Amino acid sequence: MVEVFTAVEVADVRFPTSRELDGSDAMNPEPDYSATYVTVRTSAGAEGFGLAFTVGRGNEVQTAAVEALAPLVVGRPVAETLADLGGLSARLTGDGQLRWLGPHKGVIHMAAGAVLNAVWDLYARREGKPVWALLADMTPEQLVALVDFRYLTDALTPDEALAILRAAEPGRAERRRELLAHGYPAYTTTPGWLGYTDEKLVRLAEEAVAEGFGQIKLKVGTDLAADVRRLRLARAAVGPGVRIGVDANQAWGVSQAIDWMAELAPYDPYWIEEPTSPDDVLGHAAIRRAVAPVRVATGEHCQNQVVFKQLLQAAAIDILQLDAARVAGVNENVAILLLAAKFGVPVCPHAGGVGLCEMVQHLAMFDYVAVSGSTEDRVIEYVDHLHQHFTDPVRLRAGRYLAPTAPGLSAEMHPASVADHRYPDGPVWSNPA
Amino acid sequence: MVEVFTAVEVADVRFPTSRELDGSDAMNPEPDYSATYVTVRTSAGAEGFGLAFTVGRGNEVQTAAVEALAPLVVGRPVAETLADLGGLSARLTGDGQLRWLGPHKGVIHMAAGAVLNAVWDLYARREGKPVWALLADMTPEQLVALVDFRYLTDALTPDEALAILRAAEPGRAERRRELLAHGYPAYTTTPGWLGYTDEKLVRLAEEAVAEGFGQIKLKVGTDLAADVRRLRLARAAVGPGVRIGVDANQAWGVSQAIDWMAELAPYDPYWIEEPTSPDDVLGHAAIRRAVAPVRVATGEHCQNQVVFKQLLQAAAIDILQLDAARVAGVNENVAILLLAAKFGVPVCPHAGGVGLCEMVQHLAMFDYVAVSGSTEDRVIEYVDHLHQHFTDPVRLRAGRYLAPTAPGLSAEMHPASVADHRYPDGPVWSNPA
Repeated sequence: MVEVFTAVEVADVRFPTSRELDGSDAMNPEPDYSATYVTVRTSAGAEGFGLAFTVGRGNEVQTAAVEALAPLVVGRPVAETLADLGGLSARLTGDGQLRWLGPHKGVIHMAAGAVLNAVWDLYARREGKPVWALLADMTPEQLVALVDFRYLTDALTPDEALAILRAAEPGRAERRRELLAHGYPAYTTTPGWLGYTDEKLVRLAEEAVAEGFGQIKLKVGTDLAADVRRLRLARAAVGPGVRIGVDANQAWGVSQAIDWMAELAPYDPYWIEEPTSPDDVLGHAAIRRAVAPVRVATGEHCQNQVVFKQLLQAAAIDILQLDAARVAGVNENVAILLLAAKFGVPVCPHAGGVGLCEMVQHLAMFDYVAVSGSTEDRVIEYVDHLHQHFTDPVRLRAGRYLAPTAPGLSAEMHPASVADHRYPDGPVWSNPA
Repeated sequence: MVEVFTAVEVADVRFPTSRELDGSDAMNPEPDYSATYVTVRTSAGAEGFGLAFTVGRGNEVQTAAVEALAPLVVGRPVAETLADLGGLSARLTGDGQLRWLGPHKGVIHMAAGAVLNAVWDLYARREGKPVWALLADMTPEQLVALVDFRYLTDALTPDEALAILRAAEPGRAERRRELLAHGYPAYTTTPGWLGYTDEKLVRLAEEAVAEGFGQIKLKVGTDLAADVRRLRLARAAVGPGVRIGVDANQAWGVSQAIDWMAELAPYDPYWIEEPTSPDDVLGHAAIRRAVAPVRVATGEHCQNQVVFKQLLQAAAIDILQLDAARVAGVNENVAILLLAAKFGVPVCPHAGGVGLCEMVQHLAMFDYVAVSGSTEDRVIEYVDHLHQHFTDPVRLRAGRYLAPTAPGLSAEMHPASVADHRYPDGPVWSNPA
């Protein structure tokens, strides 16, 4: 009997984070961090786990989108699928009817990412490797076959991608040892949520430095005077040697972003993140020209590789913040890492949310071992909540992510966490005592 | 008792168009044209109708997105809402949790459009006017208040928008008479579906010219030799004086688009529509520079006003093809018309689908009366199917849309059509004889 996929199951899981204002920012004042949690199963009893991240209401729409994609996976032979994950990605993102809902953006694209990532998790478990190592063991040809080049070749051809990967081959083994010994640098967003008091901000900023972080991040964009005050307090708390990113979460228009950042500049912000609409390539380019030497960073809401391509072509960003769950999974993120390497822009992944730290660390570590070959000016975001719900949570030491060693993508949640937080019937929601 | 909104109902309505290959193109080979059909109701018994268009599978995801937005409308006072439709648009597109699913793109944004358009329909019925006339009777200040300028001001400020609208005020009455007397020019896509035989293409192209159309359109992008043959046949059938648009429906990368169009150029295509990813502003700009004097057109998949803004800023398009149901309803399309007027780019709306002709004619006619003041090089797409399902179907005469006179947005369907085509339980689907 040929092993086939037998199920793509999905659960609507929500955490009531709005009760504490964890995660509050200029555009998401009261998020309930949520996961559209996907389990793929095979006829041989194998499992894989992936998820899409949302902030509460609408997680049921995301769930419906995963259900719409399930028939494209169920019934397919497993070995054949795992041998051609580029083909699976094309099928999930190119269906002649579902494609209309995007294409390649929003709910349907995040659903494709969740399903693809669950299949990658299953694949890595089967190979007995964490996903970062699975990727780092692939040949340049295998990696290039994961990518959909249809809309990329004006910026990156398959041959150029091969050349990037081949150039990084000689150092793979040494960097892998380095990674396993010392981990990958992180920064923390924990101190800077907009809903926190000044006292909490200062205390958490001091704690972050004491823990070894070389960079923290503050949310800004709602009240200029408060932003100036909070950034001044944070700068005083961490001293001149620690980088402080600021993050507007899309609150501004182009000229407003430029004016606002002029007021914050005296406190030496390292980057401005999401200054305006994530769709505005030309707007980011204009802001970057105006706010230098402050760097411009974006990516968590960047819908797909075509927009990342243009952000790089237009010299619109200094830092590329890929997200494990916004685009179509590992495949599209391999493409984005290759684009960033081609243009020499460092990748500092977005994380936090639910399981985003767990998943995205694999991509950054793969980038270090087999693509860019560098951790210079590269940091993975870290936020210290909700990790306890995962079976293989991230491990940090002295401000660095330690490389995961368990097989898979680290996206599996404890069954009890899923059951407790299932919306609307789990006890956290049906009986919020 | 203050009148309030009491319901936002939604129906999953699908037409089995794939059985005849009507609507077949390079990326949508077998569409089942579908509507996420929205009815808003008030405590005084008033109704309004709107819809999102999809091509089959996934219409249930679109339906779930409308349901997610319903609580933002139900319970609100009607008069207050109609007096501030800019506020309603901001609420539907800016919800602190639902916004994450876009923002401003894909399923959640089309859902906002469907709900907003249903409220506009209700408003216009109440005022006893078709929507085009309702808009054309508003003051420049009222029209500007409909628009969300947050991400637009680097290209269009509220003052510039006011100036455009004021400049068009003197001619409104005369153009309205002209419109009511002579209608608005159309072009037809009916001959050119990819699934049609050469004989059917030639016959339908000849019929289109005989009916008075000055422009037809052909689908291209799957097979170069076939495209050359079909365009040659179409050119021979219509003669040199009739414009032929070609439409690749996103099939190509940038250099592929340029190469393919070089082969079609001898047959004098008027425009190339959707040559590449709808997200690729810079790609469209590169293609436009290379294929001139063939014009570049796009818009039916353009997700929001921020992308239209950039297409105009980058001089990436010659023709802007707004769509009534892709963006957030009448409000965002007013913004897009103002952007197009600012940059002097003609708007030739995308239509076809289910009810898109019915709705979008109102926007083009409003543009003529009160924004651009011109029909030069402007045509509304026309496709001759599914109109019989609407209570106020479009009327064409001699290749022109006649202005609708019934109150509303013309989006109401016959109850029997909805009942017959409801998915999956309507008789067309449950018993497809």
